[in-house]
Amino acid sequence: MKVLVLNSGSSSIKYELRDPDTGTALAAGEIGRIGEAGGLPDHGSALGSVLRALRAEAGGPLADLSEVDAVGHRVVHGGSHFTGPALLTPDVIRRIEECAPLAPLHNPPALLGIREALKVLPAIPQVAVFDTAFHATIPAEAHVYALPYEYHERYGVRRYGFHGISLQSVTRKADATLGGGLAEMKAVVAHLGNGASITALAGGRSVDTSMGLTPLEGLVMGTRPGDVDPGALLYMMRELGLDAAQMDQVLNKESGLLGLSGASNDMRDILEAATAGDERAGLALDVYCYRLRKYIGAYAAALGGLDLLVFTAGVGENSPAVRAKVCEGLGFLGIELDGEANTRACGADADIAAVGADVRVLVVATDEERVIAEETVAVVARSR
Amino acid sequence: MKVLVLNSGSSSIKYELRDPDTGTALAAGEIGRIGEAGGLPDHGSALGSVLRALRAEAGGPLADLSEVDAVGHRVVHGGSHFTGPALLTPDVIRRIEECAPLAPLHNPPALLGIREALKVLPAIPQVAVFDTAFHATIPAEAHVYALPYEYHERYGVRRYGFHGISLQSVTRKADATLGGGLAEMKAVVAHLGNGASITALAGGRSVDTSMGLTPLEGLVMGTRPGDVDPGALLYMMRELGLDAAQMDQVLNKESGLLGLSGASNDMRDILEAATAGDERAGLALDVYCYRLRKYIGAYAAALGGLDLLVFTAGVGENSPAVRAKVCEGLGFLGIELDGEANTRACGADADIAAVGADVRVLVVATDEERVIAEETVAVVARSR
Repeated sequence: MKVLVLNSGSSSIKYELRDPDTGTALAAGEIGRIGEAGGLPDHGSALGSVLRALRAEAGGPLADLSEVDAVGHRVVHGGSHFTGPALLTPDVIRRIEECAPLAPLHNPPALLGIREALKVLPAIPQVAVFDTAFHATIPAEAHVYALPYEYHERYGVRRYGFHGISLQSVTRKADATLGGGLAEMKAVVAHLGNGASITALAGGRSVDTSMGLTPLEGLVMGTRPGDVDPGALLYMMRELGLDAAQMDQVLNKESGLLGLSGASNDMRDILEAATAGDERAGLALDVYCYRLRKYIGAYAAALGGLDLLVFTAGVGENSPAVRAKVCEGLGFLGIELDGEANTRACGADADIAAVGADVRVLVVATDEERVIAEETVAVVARSR
Repeated sequence: MKVLVLNSGSSSIKYELRDPDTGTALAAGEIGRIGEAGGLPDHGSALGSVLRALRAEAGGPLADLSEVDAVGHRVVHGGSHFTGPALLTPDVIRRIEECAPLAPLHNPPALLGIREALKVLPAIPQVAVFDTAFHATIPAEAHVYALPYEYHERYGVRRYGFHGISLQSVTRKADATLGGGLAEMKAVVAHLGNGASITALAGGRSVDTSMGLTPLEGLVMGTRPGDVDPGALLYMMRELGLDAAQMDQVLNKESGLLGLSGASNDMRDILEAATAGDERAGLALDVYCYRLRKYIGAYAAALGGLDLLVFTAGVGENSPAVRAKVCEGLGFLGIELDGEANTRACGADADIAAVGADVRVLVVATDEERVIAEETVAVVARSR
């Protein structure tokens, strides 16, 4: 089996050709700078470039594109409608379009990628896999905001959550590492990439997550602030004269680690600068870790205790310093790291809890493309 | 000693005449509907009415107003400048004015009350006591938002916190109930009134609190939502066409218990309706308690454990059902209620933890006027 996994962003298409039977990647790459100077003009030409790169004449693994069994598209926001992956039909595409205002930075480029792929590979079944779907199990007490209820009922203003594809990968791998048992566990997964979120899992199902209607809420991220007093936004708009578009720019592009440090949205730079004594970088690191620590406590309270803590994604997999700082003072929850195991764990799965600690702590390398490939195959099989 | 305590709101003046030596109230009352149909025209005439009511000829405790030793004004927002109470001088008044944009609903009416009181009682020393001052000890990792740092540095956008006067009262009373020891404790105080907040205390000092730049952040309140995805506000403004003023109205007046239930901002009504099977009231109660439970866990994580949980203010003092529901599932933190003691505790100080539980749980009746009177006397004494 060969599944082409596509992740279309506003100025890039990431792709992987996957064999879901073996879990291996046959090819992978990224076309960047779409629509920018020196880049390809649009998503159509970028996808053409992807397909050429996959062919044998360009050194790729395919003699012919007809060898591709299915295409799986990552779609960030599935709204309330999609609680699982869906075979792409005109009706499904229409519903994804309806979700676009909920994720204006993410859904429109995904739709561009979907339309182009359907155009050039019309005979191959294609599937949308949603980042929100994993969180469909979150109960009302955790997904309803305390706003006038009509905003929820009529306009879909509620917590959806994101990083669901990563969570599917990570929970499955964690369960394997543990030798089973996740289904009986109270678990928290911290997905710490440039976007960051944390999820509470009861028996492997999401019961709360830090991102909300949009990917702005929750933890401190590379350029996003996570939680902010709603009154602070009103204050900034009223007193500093920012309009909604400017506020959007500040919250999506200028906040988070970048805004606090004034230097970088990348945790590696922040750690280096903080170690060298840069005060603002130190503050960014402190706020980042403190907020994450509080969420671990909050979700332990939501779950009524804690059995497992998982770190994943760029920072989660590769930053022992952040993991150690986040876990400081959490001994009362039963979280205790093995210092050496933590330091060694970099980019690969590892068990980093101290021997005898009550809470298991794992580092798990997330593999979202594998989940997309597998979900795609499963949907295609069901549809036949 | 006789101290007149004034709390001037937009359409009301609450007053108490206090003897700070004995802690007793010699008189208390409220003039409401200021500037409304059937009410007094302005704060000046309302204050005149207060002063008349205090006199013996109206049945009050004063033969003459000159018996008043000092006046203490409650001021909600002291910004970064005021870390304690301050004798009212033209300079102090100017600085309170500067804080008005941070609390547009609260500071301007307090200033009206201050100006009128200085006019009619020019010979009596007057003091401003701030709700924010108690939180001056919150460290940067907890008071800095992950916004561009210039908003903090240049415009004072940070967490200030509120309910500080109540916290002063409650921590002192809790310490007395415990027979001392608060200074060595990790404590969380939930102030649950129509406005609601929760504060983490290390050794009796505030290290984090749920309200932020404004009193909108944090817990679910009577008409305020507490925490909301910043992206949800942008979405509502962009997609539903709300402007900043309409958003302000929704967040300050139409959200919280009222918005969720569609019926009432009063927890007594919510509990009654939820018990009678009203689904929306049940949802409001669930969200209210769930969010509070998560904050208790978050602050336990911030403190590195928990020794003491205190409930205060209207709901906190009088609602055994809310206290019980909030503490459900928190046994892993060492929180366990004595069901009977909890049910009995209504409007008076009580110890409601189960015998042998690791965390002490207290109900404490807050007495903000007493703190204002005592602080006022202390400031006047120091200024002499």
